[in-house]
Amino acid sequence: MRRIAVAKGDGIGPEIMDAVLKIFYEAKVPLEYVTVDIGKWVFDKGFNTGMTPEARQTIETLGILFKGPMETPKGKGVKSINVTARKTWNTYANTRTFQTLHGVDTVFSKAGIPIDITVVRENIEDTYGGIEHMITNDVAISRRIITRPGSMQVIKYAFEMARKKKARRITCAHKANIMKITDGLFLEVFQEVAKDYPDLKADDVIVDDLCMKLVTKPDTFDVIVLTNLQGDIVSDLCAGLIGGLGFAPSANIGDHICIFEAVHGTAPDIAGKNIANPTALLLSGIGMLRHLGLMESATMIENALLYTLEQGVHTGDFGNKSISAVNTTQFAEAITSNF
Amino acid sequence: MRRIAVAKGDGIGPEIMDAVLKIFYEAKVPLEYVTVDIGKWVFDKGFNTGMTPEARQTIETLGILFKGPMETPKGKGVKSINVTARKTWNTYANTRTFQTLHGVDTVFSKAGIPIDITVVRENIEDTYGGIEHMITNDVAISRRIITRPGSMQVIKYAFEMARKKKARRITCAHKANIMKITDGLFLEVFQEVAKDYPDLKADDVIVDDLCMKLVTKPDTFDVIVLTNLQGDIVSDLCAGLIGGLGFAPSANIGDHICIFEAVHGTAPDIAGKNIANPTALLLSGIGMLRHLGLMESATMIENALLYTLEQGVHTGDFGNKSISAVNTTQFAEAITSNF
Ligand SMILES: CC(C)[C@H](C(=O)O)[C@@H](O)C(=O)O
Ligand SMILES: CC(C)[C@H](C(=O)O)[C@@H](O)C(=O)O
Repeated sequence: MRRIAVAKGDGIGPEIMDAVLKIFYEAKVPLEYVTVDIGKWVFDKGFNTGMTPEARQTIETLGILFKGPMETPKGKGVKSINVTARKTWNTYANTRTFQTLHGVDTVFSKAGIPIDITVVRENIEDTYGGIEHMITNDVAISRRIITRPGSMQVIKYAFEMARKKKARRITCAHKANIMKITDGLFLEVFQEVAKDYPDLKADDVIVDDLCMKLVTKPDTFDVIVLTNLQGDIVSDLCAGLIGGLGFAPSANIGDHICIFEAVHGTAPDIAGKNIANPTALLLSGIGMLRHLGLMESATMIENALLYTLEQGVHTGDFGNKSISAVNTTQFAEAITSNF
Repeated sequence: MRRIAVAKGDGIGPEIMDAVLKIFYEAKVPLEYVTVDIGKWVFDKGFNTGMTPEARQTIETLGILFKGPMETPKGKGVKSINVTARKTWNTYANTRTFQTLHGVDTVFSKAGIPIDITVVRENIEDTYGGIEHMITNDVAISRRIITRPGSMQVIKYAFEMARKKKARRITCAHKANIMKITDGLFLEVFQEVAKDYPDLKADDVIVDDLCMKLVTKPDTFDVIVLTNLQGDIVSDLCAGLIGGLGFAPSANIGDHICIFEAVHGTAPDIAGKNIANPTALLLSGIGMLRHLGLMESATMIENALLYTLEQGVHTGDFGNKSISAVNTTQFAEAITSNF
């Protein structure tokens, strides 16, 4: 049986991961799970990347990491564990799909505007290199790096994905009117790659204009590809369109290793209370099953989740207040009862 | 009588400026206007900053520039005229106020969520310096600069403004979890300045999280202060919340010169047709009147505008389709008839 690495994460991580793995178990998903030690809790034990050498080796052997949310340790020299993981394994494409979910009310769902947007974000470069320093006591500088091969790999991935899902449109967002050289390079690569995909409608938009249009006409977009930081911002905006990060799956795609994760916070205030919402992690897990070719399991679980949400079953953080909230375990049971 | 410089701009600029000045005239605004030559059309005549030396001198003498939208000339070495103007006169704070307007429907107004957000954006630093180059054929680098005095002046301005308007909250948005040094400096200055304003509720938020919250709970924000590019993106997002850039005033505040402007596009496709919407430019003009202490004129014009919109009078780009659209001149006349 295929084995994958699982890191439960910090805060609410363990309880939502347990809920998701229970759902996978009930769905008879043909996977075996190898638990690995990654997270703020590992950092606190003295491992400054937030992971043990064993964890790293296991992940490199198995190729797939399924992870819960992780807290970023505080301190100036310290890097986010999520970012370290993405960089360590060159997972160059961060892919997040935002779809209207019946049962999760937003101003857009109420207005009858359907959302179906996939953001593909370059995941390694830009100012995420953390190449920064103080030139004097008063002047700070950060280097923003954009490379042709780095842009090429994520843009090619985005076009392949767009073709596979028969996207209506693939849009490159950028600020090439100001960052004419760096974003200019990213846009140039996009336009070059677009020539190989005449079947797809490819266009570009300035990132600020994109953000205005995402809140006025979000249904006109489909696949959007961006550089790292702009992609980070646009991803969260799009998460808001469908109800928040609690409903947004995330996949970090590399040639050798892929990471599927929940990207919402670790919610320390409610950790251990069995009331957290496992939906984002479950949606990430469903994406992972598809990636592994386990289409039947993925579809069965996804249908059960969508049906459960439609029924109005919800944890305390969302849903119709006139239907009382269930806890994490009950939410998972409601899903498995809908297989 | 106080004299100010007026640049009509490109595309629809001249016709919306004429409409606004007609409204000012009917309102007996005690101002005299000195027309100056700035815009893409001036660039095309061979002035590579997009302005004539006479224009520059007039503006420096008068201290106030009221301007229509301007087109950015194409080409790698060429800078945006708007950005050049902001930099030339060190207008360090870009202030945009986004308020729900009755008669301008959005998903938020339909859901009964009121918007009243002022974005104060640092207007000079960040990657807007345009310090970029190719290191090799494949690697582009841009320098992002954040300085203490630059951050200080805009943050102090934001706090003063927040105090004057008795803001419910002033929020610093940043990405200091990744750009620990540059955005860390901006955040540090914010926290330092906040100590001098114990009457104000000051807090900070990561910029991606802000964008998620702006589309889910926009009514929880009031004044938001940010670095340049993040501020650019968040400004447009907020414009979308109230119906688009056609309804968003903009002021560039410096110690010696202030620029009040419409920041939407020049809409070359409809230029000269007398159908463009002058609302954003008029709102910017109203902000300018307040800045000049002309409170009575400002209030009279603002009330007339708000009442006109509420009546359902609209240009072709917005409003209730069952009420037929008016042209630019008629829109201005409807406003003056409501004085
Ligand atoms: C936690 C943070 C470092 C991270 C990022 O900026 O990439 C997060 O916002 C995300 O989107 O996954
Ligand atoms: C036109 C462009 C250079 C400008 C900017 O990026 O500042 C615009 O987006 C704005 O917000 O005024």
